[in-house]
Amino acid sequence: MATPNSASPQTPVEARRIVLAKRPQGEPQPDDFRFEDVTLPAPAPGEVVLQTLYLSLDPYMRGRMNEGPSYAAAVPLGGVMTGEVVGRVVASNDPQWRPGDLALAFAGWTTHAVINAKELRRVDPQAAPIETRLGVLGMPGFTAYVGLHDIGKPKAGETVVVAAASGPVGSLVGQLARQAGARAVGIAGGARKCAYVKEELGFDAVIDHHQTDMARQLAAACPDGIDVYFENVGGEVWNAVFPLLNAFARVPVCGLIADYNGITARPGEASVPELMRAVLSKRLTLRGFINYDLESYRDAFERDVGAGVRSGKLRYTLDIVDGIDQAPQAFMGMLKGRNFGKLLVRVAQ
Amino acid sequence: MATPNSASPQTPVEARRIVLAKRPQGEPQPDDFRFEDVTLPAPAPGEVVLQTLYLSLDPYMRGRMNEGPSYAAAVPLGGVMTGEVVGRVVASNDPQWRPGDLALAFAGWTTHAVINAKELRRVDPQAAPIETRLGVLGMPGFTAYVGLHDIGKPKAGETVVVAAASGPVGSLVGQLARQAGARAVGIAGGARKCAYVKEELGFDAVIDHHQTDMARQLAAACPDGIDVYFENVGGEVWNAVFPLLNAFARVPVCGLIADYNGITARPGEASVPELMRAVLSKRLTLRGFINYDLESYRDAFERDVGAGVRSGKLRYTLDIVDGIDQAPQAFMGMLKGRNFGKLLVRVAQ
Repeated sequence: MATPNSASPQTPVEARRIVLAKRPQGEPQPDDFRFEDVTLPAPAPGEVVLQTLYLSLDPYMRGRMNEGPSYAAAVPLGGVMTGEVVGRVVASNDPQWRPGDLALAFAGWTTHAVINAKELRRVDPQAAPIETRLGVLGMPGFTAYVGLHDIGKPKAGETVVVAAASGPVGSLVGQLARQAGARAVGIAGGARKCAYVKEELGFDAVIDHHQTDMARQLAAACPDGIDVYFENVGGEVWNAVFPLLNAFARVPVCGLIADYNGITARPGEASVPELMRAVLSKRLTLRGFINYDLESYRDAFERDVGAGVRSGKLRYTLDIVDGIDQAPQAFMGMLKGRNFGKLLVRVAQ
Repeated sequence: MATPNSASPQTPVEARRIVLAKRPQGEPQPDDFRFEDVTLPAPAPGEVVLQTLYLSLDPYMRGRMNEGPSYAAAVPLGGVMTGEVVGRVVASNDPQWRPGDLALAFAGWTTHAVINAKELRRVDPQAAPIETRLGVLGMPGFTAYVGLHDIGKPKAGETVVVAAASGPVGSLVGQLARQAGARAVGIAGGARKCAYVKEELGFDAVIDHHQTDMARQLAAACPDGIDVYFENVGGEVWNAVFPLLNAFARVPVCGLIADYNGITARPGEASVPELMRAVLSKRLTLRGFINYDLESYRDAFERDVGAGVRSGKLRYTLDIVDGIDQAPQAFMGMLKGRNFGKLLVRVAQ
């Protein structure tokens, strides 16, 4: 029953993949990961073999390494680490896909995967560089867009604060806030990132969280308080932001990278009753969201951010490491803020 | 320049009023209040003399007794305690008002006040009992209505939890939730209030917070978790509610009576990082609001709740004490949950 565009691989496909060997205690360590070389089965009808070109590494993956309830299932012990890729179809047993087609899929940390064709999203390499589909035009960009539009809703003259401001979410949050006429204040780690945020991305102000007096600097950079705090880090940044929140401030909560390795008490931080008192007296909105809950924004996102990227008005930076073997080290470094821009692993070309 | 409907009082009006003598440390004490007997000035043009018929006592007043920033200014030391009243115009120097007219105003804890006519809202005694303008058809009812409609948004089959369920806010929250097809679970203090909430107000379940195992009982009463928690008390109730919140739960925050006398650490309660992790992973919405921020709901409220009160479908209970001299004691008792229904002071008839 082979159709002209279905091609079983002539030779079995060998894949190298990375599985969760142990659940990390605190910061992930190299031996929490294990490499496996496997021979993939031939694709069944409706399936394709996808070769990973770029693997996206994102903070949320740290949460998937833990047991316990969260918004998505944990990676099982021995299971392939979860992750989105841009890949190339190298064999297809589905009439909609031909070898050479490019697609997005949650293939995981692997060089190749057999995937149900229904789980692929087609990528047009003419529309934008394919790497952007994992960054500014992918999940991180969409996260920035929906969090700002559905929750943050910055108005002209308001102040929007975001941390990890040189990263794929924060960089777009600040640029979109400025497009809305708001002041964008970024927080980033180190002089190089701060210079990029201010000079390349055009934020109005930037704070280096490596400085010891971040809270004081943030207050100075936000003389009119904070109207939108796009929460993607938690920790000390939250403590610095909290007293500066204005009446009717909105806090979209999309990530808490500071706590992903475990929550530690921070002396001097507000208690829950103090937080709730501020929620009441300042009429704050705190709202958690996951990008895929807000798919109704997809078309507007593709239109608005796509146009901005094509025209060069919206800037982004990629941090690319080469080879699947580098994924664990790159991921561990990202959790410490060592990446500069959207972190990708180039697995093949 | 007297007009036919302006009448200067023939004799000066004597007023008895209650001022803030000291800022309470923790629970208010009798000597935090002081009675004053004063002779009021004659009303200037555009002013009236309003005689208080009913004075509303509400938990928010505890906050006004403190210094420091909140959503409204503190009562100054020596100032008349703030409060809304239904009163009767006894002298008018404004063409829009005649003696005998009934009005709502923030006259404070006083038998009489000279008030700018612009600050009066007319009360029609034919439309509903005038006492309801301070309860189910007044600020507490409006608070329930806007918090539920603008933030809680209960859907059929969802579970809505509210504390102080026999009080003027909680009782309407539960009844409106049931009108929306949701399950209403109330928390109240003592067997008598609980019986009223279940049998008279028609809540699906009620928990007595005087019981030691409130958290376990609440979990049993919410087998499908909690979708809307209307937060008006804080404290131990919040600790019992928090682990039961479902994904996408909404928490309108309108009051924190448990903490009004001061925040004390509660062992075992979630930290802010744990709260924020839940906000993220469950996509919770926490939003503070003050009823007067949401005036756009006024007409819908008057229509919906007015109809419910007139038809008897929406029930309410008043707790009326007689005489302005009783106000401090009644207020202190309310903060301990000793009132049963909307607490009013009948100052004159």
